[in-house]
Amino acid sequence: MHGVKAILFDTFGTVVDWRASLIDALTGFGAARGIAADWTGLVDAWRGAYVPSMDRVRRGELPWTILDDLHRASLERLVAEFGIAGLSAADLDHLTLGWHRLRPWPDSVPGLTRLKARYVIAPLSNGNVALLVNLAKQASLPWDMVCGADLFRHYKPDPETYLCAARLLGLAPGEVTMAAAHNGDLQAARTCGLQVAFFPRPTEYGPHQARDVAADSDWTVVAADIEDLATRMGA
Amino acid sequence: MHGVKAILFDTFGTVVDWRASLIDALTGFGAARGIAADWTGLVDAWRGAYVPSMDRVRRGELPWTILDDLHRASLERLVAEFGIAGLSAADLDHLTLGWHRLRPWPDSVPGLTRLKARYVIAPLSNGNVALLVNLAKQASLPWDMVCGADLFRHYKPDPETYLCAARLLGLAPGEVTMAAAHNGDLQAARTCGLQVAFFPRPTEYGPHQARDVAADSDWTVVAADIEDLATRMGA
Repeated sequence: MHGVKAILFDTFGTVVDWRASLIDALTGFGAARGIAADWTGLVDAWRGAYVPSMDRVRRGELPWTILDDLHRASLERLVAEFGIAGLSAADLDHLTLGWHRLRPWPDSVPGLTRLKARYVIAPLSNGNVALLVNLAKQASLPWDMVCGADLFRHYKPDPETYLCAARLLGLAPGEVTMAAAHNGDLQAARTCGLQVAFFPRPTEYGPHQARDVAADSDWTVVAADIEDLATRMGA
Repeated sequence: MHGVKAILFDTFGTVVDWRASLIDALTGFGAARGIAADWTGLVDAWRGAYVPSMDRVRRGELPWTILDDLHRASLERLVAEFGIAGLSAADLDHLTLGWHRLRPWPDSVPGLTRLKARYVIAPLSNGNVALLVNLAKQASLPWDMVCGADLFRHYKPDPETYLCAARLLGLAPGEVTMAAAHNGDLQAARTCGLQVAFFPRPTEYGPHQARDVAADSDWTVVAADIEDLATRMGA
């Protein structure tokens, strides 16, 4: 990791446990409102809509649209598909903001706090800045900067995201490490000249996860989690 | 301050004492290198070049240029005007990075830390993101987000800066307070619909400062400093 000055972190799945957080939030909402539904299935379908919805922006079928608005549109469609009736626009807004209240993995805050002492740390996420700022505030993520996709009007893995984030930090791509629990994100970052760090989140997608359970290339660093990454990066 | 969720801070002069910090840095450099010069005059002339250099970008005489590069070009011209010889390109780079190492006023870190507990806080500065991130890191400024002019490719007081910063935070202009020690900055922010908070920095420009020594309009809040602002804003 010679010459690395900043570490960019993928966020959903890498830093925060979106699935368990959203299942709790939606199940709690359903219980409070007396609405029985397959809330777990809805969360998985919601996440399933994530990449296709960004791809519509990437292909130009939609104008630039922030993730909050993609999430909101996907949710509106999915509640109908799941046969959930009686939700108001305000309810859908509230549930969409569940993405602003995701819980960090146990190692995230202590690991990031150690890394912050030695490196510039920032999320590089497909979330929009407002989502990421609110998430950091409630989860105490100690970022130095917040790189949301709306800064670039591009979604990962478009190269503009990695390259513009490095440029904003005043750094060459090789002075920046992209850290993620997703091999595809790291492949795209490496193609742009960034260094890359992997650690698995084997339950991100639930108990039967088949993807990204291990590093699938010779990434610059492979760690167990963010605390271990801090140790391996001398922080 | 009803409904305010975020506070944007002007930075140079408002949060950090650029003049005393740069005089110390340049005087120390001169002493270490045995170069006698009017370093205080150079600092004042450097700051004097700040607005005219941004105006050249605003008028389209220069393409978009970050503040680090405007500072570097102004310094190169000024050292010649001040008759300072023998500085290498690396010396000029080093001195320009003095803007990344400015010291906060004594109330800045405690006041911001209190405000952060209740509001989203971010700089909204004509500095570029890298400058502001490095500044925050060495001065322990606890920002939630960093809004540099390079995010907008506009310099204050262009309305794009205030309006795009609010939009990035997912807020309406009236949910955001602009805080500054400069009346002109607040006038521009108010025109965009932001709430505005003033506190004076009567020695920002040195012992004979004549500008911005007091509020010159009925700003939403007038405070003594950032700690007092925290008190007045219930933080």
